[in-house]
Amino acid sequence: MTLEGLLPELEMIRADFPILERTVHGLPLVYLDSANTSQKPQIVIDTMVDHLERHNANVARAMHQLGAESTEAFEGARDKVAGFIGAPSRDEVIFTKNASEALNLVANTLAWARGRYEIGAGDEVVITEMEHHSNIVPWQLLTERKGATLRWFGVTDDGQLDTSNIDELITERTKVVALTWVSNMLGTINPIAAIAKRAHEVGALVVVDGAQAVPQMPVDLQGFGPGEAPDFLIFTGHKVVGPTGIGVLWGRREVLEELPPFLGGGEMIATVTMARSTYAGIPHKFEAGTPPIVEAVGLGAAVEYLGHVGMENVRRHEHAITAYALEGLATVPGIKVLGPADAALRGGAISFELDGVHPHDIAQVVDSRGVAIRAGHHCAKPAHQRFGVQASTRMSSYLYTTPAEIDAFIEALEYTRSYFKLS
Amino acid sequence: MTLEGLLPELEMIRADFPILERTVHGLPLVYLDSANTSQKPQIVIDTMVDHLERHNANVARAMHQLGAESTEAFEGARDKVAGFIGAPSRDEVIFTKNASEALNLVANTLAWARGRYEIGAGDEVVITEMEHHSNIVPWQLLTERKGATLRWFGVTDDGQLDTSNIDELITERTKVVALTWVSNMLGTINPIAAIAKRAHEVGALVVVDGAQAVPQMPVDLQGFGPGEAPDFLIFTGHKVVGPTGIGVLWGRREVLEELPPFLGGGEMIATVTMARSTYAGIPHKFEAGTPPIVEAVGLGAAVEYLGHVGMENVRRHEHAITAYALEGLATVPGIKVLGPADAALRGGAISFELDGVHPHDIAQVVDSRGVAIRAGHHCAKPAHQRFGVQASTRMSSYLYTTPAEIDAFIEALEYTRSYFKLS
Repeated sequence: MTLEGLLPELEMIRADFPILERTVHGLPLVYLDSANTSQKPQIVIDTMVDHLERHNANVARAMHQLGAESTEAFEGARDKVAGFIGAPSRDEVIFTKNASEALNLVANTLAWARGRYEIGAGDEVVITEMEHHSNIVPWQLLTERKGATLRWFGVTDDGQLDTSNIDELITERTKVVALTWVSNMLGTINPIAAIAKRAHEVGALVVVDGAQAVPQMPVDLQGFGPGEAPDFLIFTGHKVVGPTGIGVLWGRREVLEELPPFLGGGEMIATVTMARSTYAGIPHKFEAGTPPIVEAVGLGAAVEYLGHVGMENVRRHEHAITAYALEGLATVPGIKVLGPADAALRGGAISFELDGVHPHDIAQVVDSRGVAIRAGHHCAKPAHQRFGVQASTRMSSYLYTTPAEIDAFIEALEYTRSYFKLS
Repeated sequence: MTLEGLLPELEMIRADFPILERTVHGLPLVYLDSANTSQKPQIVIDTMVDHLERHNANVARAMHQLGAESTEAFEGARDKVAGFIGAPSRDEVIFTKNASEALNLVANTLAWARGRYEIGAGDEVVITEMEHHSNIVPWQLLTERKGATLRWFGVTDDGQLDTSNIDELITERTKVVALTWVSNMLGTINPIAAIAKRAHEVGALVVVDGAQAVPQMPVDLQGFGPGEAPDFLIFTGHKVVGPTGIGVLWGRREVLEELPPFLGGGEMIATVTMARSTYAGIPHKFEAGTPPIVEAVGLGAAVEYLGHVGMENVRRHEHAITAYALEGLATVPGIKVLGPADAALRGGAISFELDGVHPHDIAQVVDSRGVAIRAGHHCAKPAHQRFGVQASTRMSSYLYTTPAEIDAFIEALEYTRSYFKLS
């Protein structure tokens, strides 16, 4: 069993997450659904409570003491997020409501863009077959509405991105290449730097969905080679031990500045008359209305927490747990793992089938043993279709996951087999 | 002094709001900026903490116990919100990130609508001169992008909506009438039923910005007369003692069902293939991605709290405090109130000028006395332009505001006058 790389302070980390003390159906909770949403450490909850109980006020607009405190906390969170991903500038960090909104913000502003970034008939947008619906539907809407064409990378039999036809796919007609860094279903880690490099050679914008990557691996936007960094990186608060209600769009300054506004309203304007308006600079141009204030403050605490643990350490821990889980799954008769077999090629989500049992039934029986996993299409129907299945079962770990929890999960699968009388 | 209508349990209510125990610059906090954002009662904070510490999971997607608990809490919040505004159906309640997003959702889906709701050249959208920027800019963007025309109701000298030319403004060309129920700057309560009736006669959609109204007055969408109910009502969580990060769009079912989707992603789809997608029914069609879960749960607790106090009682309290504040302001030399002089015609926000002192200076000096009020354009530049001013100072009360706080505010204004040596 491969267990090198586990976080040495794992029990201390677990003690930071109050929900992990819970029981479910009278058994200790084994939470293996972190790719769906992560649990929250006490410091995130306490930081939000402190803000609500002592510093709550609207931001930017208020000149009073509480307003100053709230604005400082909110903009301080932007600094923390910028640092967490190595953003060249804090102004490039835009707070959205979730990762989906961030992706739609890009697609939607491109729909109204004029000039260099305008998209029309004959133009192409390239995505992949392993995208989450949130990185498919916005591009379908964009291309349908603008008369452009949607194309996509396929997936190989072992769940990797098929880049064999990259030069046919990414051409002078390509205006946008949008892809996930880590697949939420297959776990695959994609070669985003190489694809970005090719996309930039033809002048396309590169949008990277980091919803699964950012929680699991160190990200340094300034650490990419020439032409290899994305133009946009998206992630969400609730998957990095932060709250719901907040997502992040990082975008390259010159692109953000040239795009038209997304939502109109307070804080995103420079001047408003009844006849016309002009818009604020970034990031505020894309943050109409009262922002998710307490959520940003919570997200700031979350990325600070992960920073203290160290994202390299989180990555090693995830790798060790994933390898251990893959080994455990290999011992269960009838299990077929979807996606790369090598833990080094994947993140901490493992989707699988169990011969003869519907995924929903697996999840339900496993839940009766206290083990929380996800069953369904995981918002990635095309990736499932690629493998000829409607649904799968998925376990996903995080920095608080222990080998003992993986053992409990494997035992629960064995119990499921016996429950359904599989030989 | 008019004080009939104060909440009898005012001191008990105040004890529910932990932030009201704070001091600012060594003085007790007097929070008179509730139209900007309201403070939160302990039950809202505790409900959010309980969710994060014990029930946190993603919704709809998870088949495990935590997922069921989280989904029940989230959808239960939708029921509470539907009940709070008397919505005909819970499915008509859509959770957004704030009021601005809700308004933009309507304007943005209308931009892509085909058929009955399509907007193009020759069509008109009617708003008013007293709108918040969030109910101006989305309609400017829509009409500019679609070649339609934006028109607006003016404002009378005493801060009321000038409806004298309603039959010239609302015509067969009108596709949308969008207006605020209560002005965030002037405090004016608008005759939305009469305007909706006229708009419906010409087949226009009626969008009501309830960001200031819903916190202050009982709302019963099923209580309007024939043709007098809006087609959309918008409000935000953080102004009804709930958290930031969540807004509400209520829409009439048949309109919502006919509009195209807004953001694309998880949960808003029925099927997805790489070639095309179909969409879920309402409300999920308009809720792409992981929703603001803990925020909805907090909002549910918030409207339940307000329901226990009773919105008729809140309205009476606001009225009494506003009348008392108007009387107090009348005693301060050099004060000019913008908006209706009669408290019966207005909500609990009072914007004013003090001869010879810039609003920002007023807010700052008043803050040094512990009194939090807002200065600036309050995201309503055109309404300020109407009265020939760039900015104003605004005090706004809520259910926790006491007459003694109004006294402290008036004293702080007197101090401001002496500070600036006004005679």
